[in-house]
Amino acid sequence: MLTHLDEQNRPKMVDVSSKNDTNREATASGIITMSAKALDMVLNNKNKKGPVLQTAVISAILGAKQTSTLIPMCHPLMLTSINCDIDELKDGFKLIVTAKLKGQTGVEMEALTGVSIGLLTIYDMVKAVDKSMVIKDIKLLKKSGGKSGKYELKL
Amino acid sequence: MLTHLDEQNRPKMVDVSSKNDTNREATASGIITMSAKALDMVLNNKNKKGPVLQTAVISAILGAKQTSTLIPMCHPLMLTSINCDIDELKDGFKLIVTAKLKGQTGVEMEALTGVSIGLLTIYDMVKAVDKSMVIKDIKLLKKSGGKSGKYELKL
Amino acid sequence: MLTHLDEQNRPKMVDVSSKNDTNREATASGIITMSAKALDMVLNNKNKKGPVLQTAVISAILGAKQTSTLIPMCHPLMLTSINCDIDELKDGFKLIVTAKLKGQTGVEMEALTGVSIGLLTIYDMVKAVDKSMVIKDIKLLKKSGGKSGKYELKL
Amino acid sequence: MLTHLDEQNRPKMVDVSSKNDTNREATASGIITMSAKALDMVLNNKNKKGPVLQTAVISAILGAKQTSTLIPMCHPLMLTSINCDIDELKDGFKLIVTAKLKGQTGVEMEALTGVSIGLLTIYDMVKAVDKSMVIKDIKLLKKSGGKSGKYELKL
Amino acid sequence: MLTHLDEQNRPKMVDVSSKNDTNREATASGIITMSAKALDMVLNNKNKKGPVLQTAVISAILGAKQTSTLIPMCHPLMLTSINCDIDELKDGFKLIVTAKLKGQTGVEMEALTGVSIGLLTIYDMVKAVDKSMVIKDIKLLKKSGGKSGKYELKL
Amino acid sequence: MLTHLDEQNRPKMVDVSSKNDTNREATASGIITMSAKALDMVLNNKNKKGPVLQTAVISAILGAKQTSTLIPMCHPLMLTSINCDIDELKDGFKLIVTAKLKGQTGVEMEALTGVSIGLLTIYDMVKAVDKSMVIKDIKLLKKSGGKSGKYELKL
Repeated sequence: MLTHLDEQNRPKMVDVSSKNDTNREATASGIITMSAKALDMVLNNKNKKGPVLQTAVISAILGAKQTSTLIPMCHPLMLTSINCDIDELKDGFKLIVTAKLKGQTGVEMEALTGVSIGLLTIYDMVKAVDKSMVIKDIKLLKKSGGKSGKYELKL
Repeated sequence: MLTHLDEQNRPKMVDVSSKNDTNREATASGIITMSAKALDMVLNNKNKKGPVLQTAVISAILGAKQTSTLIPMCHPLMLTSINCDIDELKDGFKLIVTAKLKGQTGVEMEALTGVSIGLLTIYDMVKAVDKSMVIKDIKLLKKSGGKSGKYELKL
Repeated sequence: MLTHLDEQNRPKMVDVSSKNDTNREATASGIITMSAKALDMVLNNKNKKGPVLQTAVISAILGAKQTSTLIPMCHPLMLTSINCDIDELKDGFKLIVTAKLKGQTGVEMEALTGVSIGLLTIYDMVKAVDKSMVIKDIKLLKKSGGKSGKYELKL
Repeated sequence: MLTHLDEQNRPKMVDVSSKNDTNREATASGIITMSAKALDMVLNNKNKKGPVLQTAVISAILGAKQTSTLIPMCHPLMLTSINCDIDELKDGFKLIVTAKLKGQTGVEMEALTGVSIGLLTIYDMVKAVDKSMVIKDIKLLKKSGGKSGKYELKL
Repeated sequence: MLTHLDEQNRPKMVDVSSKNDTNREATASGIITMSAKALDMVLNNKNKKGPVLQTAVISAILGAKQTSTLIPMCHPLMLTSINCDIDELKDGFKLIVTAKLKGQTGVEMEALTGVSIGLLTIYDMVKAVDKSMVIKDIKLLKKSGGKSGKYELKL
Repeated sequence: MLTHLDEQNRPKMVDVSSKNDTNREATASGIITMSAKALDMVLNNKNKKGPVLQTAVISAILGAKQTSTLIPMCHPLMLTSINCDIDELKDGFKLIVTAKLKGQTGVEMEALTGVSIGLLTIYDMVKAVDKSMVIKDIKLLKKSGGKSGKYELKL
């Protein structure tokens, strides 16, 4: 079936040409868990590769801007804001990324990509101490704007 | 303390100049969970954006190649192999990416980045049907090569 | 003459600041010809590197998004749609890419770049079987929008 | 069949880990044809966007370096040389790109991608005068190095 | 203080969502100084790597388009114009780059990044003859548009 | 002369295929000067966009890795180390970047590009307070490795 590439079977970027520009916003979060020793090194800046959380925030912002080159069917977007917060957990960190745009399509993927790249950066900077870290709970918390309107994750 | 940028406080790429070229390999995996309806659309190619899993595999491979531009302290590497498998789960999919290199530093981040981008691509292609999908359990399964030798995740 | 860089001699990105946003669309196509053996492998998914046409479609879409980083004088654009069709020919394949935008400049190059990258991807995935494939007939089929208005290739 | 992603159906980067480093070289060429008026503008540097051929050569070299980010299953490579020649034809131009590498896999795609991007750049810079230009005859002229040895296109 | 990532301490992209689209323009310049021998080679195209100034102009334009991927807190922008002039000095060259945009944030960084990349390209192409070249005086000459209005460097 | 693209007139990447792999290292530096008010904001982390120097270091490292995509005739390289130091000056900051490689060509451009991107990042983060900052004295301090051997800037 693959080679016929019929309507069901061909990847495509959804056509948003006729959508209106609206203010759009999306927030996503994700968690990385690590050993007590690794957590301590991050919190006290004793890490071999340098300050972990600052680097994670910067990579999350840069990563969100790369979304349309990384995710094949995403539209290129002119983000007007990317913000990255980090919460300290008992056994790791939670990253929360919010992306904004005035445009024709949503920014959920930008928020989710920012979270993912930020968490991977934490993994990279700490892996000399702990290779068993786990990245988890990457999810869309909420979005607003566009025809489909508001969405908020039920907890 | 930040502005003094002393030894503890400055991010840096670890110097691997004096390391030997060895055959290195790393395998990482990660999971995306989704609703029964979303799962059915993926498995039966009824998805609006087209075939999901093929697109995920391709984006995982392309994403792994972008690791050093996404993760600030990663070295640029000439990967000799990237492989991406997908297992069908009851409520989603598991991606398993293996990266290989003959070089001076490991390829754990390449495998983990490939997994993350592949999972984000699945989210992107299915999100019109299910926004509550969760990406989880991204972890390093095993690595080999280099001075630190073999590592295998204890299950 | 070169070093004086006078009006005639300096490359420049055309200034489109004063142009209006209009709905713009362009369609381009191109062909790759190959041996009967290679064609058969593509159509029956017996190819060493995997499914060829899906990969070509995805790379065409990703490639179109890279146009302004690849073609020096192209403006960065927020494409609202990229679509890639593949026609099976007797001795190869024809790719047809349509790009859309609401903006100040046309999307001909995006359509042409998508076609080119898609065809190169087919070449890459099949070259183990046939190195004598030829890429040809890359051309703009039609465009609309903007001050210069409609264009359609005379056949 | 697609969703099972079995051996025949999953795109993959070929594993070159066990291949030896050898000196590899590939030469590709391609042609763009245009109207007499367009050709005259290029040759006499009367073109609105500036000197066409220099820009094409530079974009061909930059484009060849982007091969592994554009063509999904291509390996990242440390090219040691890229050279781009341009022949003036009666009705257009021929680009000839040669790429070299000491490494584990061939550089055919780098040469072909360089040719394609160079020709697209010519199209871009001249399209205000002639939209009916055609890019054609993109092909591998010869390659050497590696297990499969020498290849030369039969004319 | 770093690890608390409080308001003062977390890098962020400034939120421009509520700003209006206005016509914005910025001009920056910078200088590279070199030996008489190097200058002569550039002016007479006797340089080993080829024509220097054309290559610098093209790289300045391409570089300006990469600003938001290079400078972490810069917004992605759809530049409508980038122009690069080169003045010949007694002991080197001055690059002047002007960038334009109709958008929500200024284009100073795009002009400055274009200047920097163009000057680095001159360094690269001439360094076989003169490694002691110095890049200097990179500064914003003027900007207009946006809430902060006109700025012009006092000389 | 331009259109003939003869030996003197065609940009090209220098062929390094026959060079040996040697340990190569290069150090470059550059300065940004700013007002007392701006300097104070950086040193005390009172800046609107967040911690300036950490962001500069990270962007310098990421920027150095992008050298071959930014500077047209640069070879893609597998850097084994990039290090970025910052010295506090009376009226600004000095960035010092060292890049290392075991390979066939030098890493001067990587060090210089890292310095330039790092300084531009400081400009970007502080420009809301001071638009008259100047980037200057970007130069190669020393290099070693390769046929041309050691170079050290005479002061």
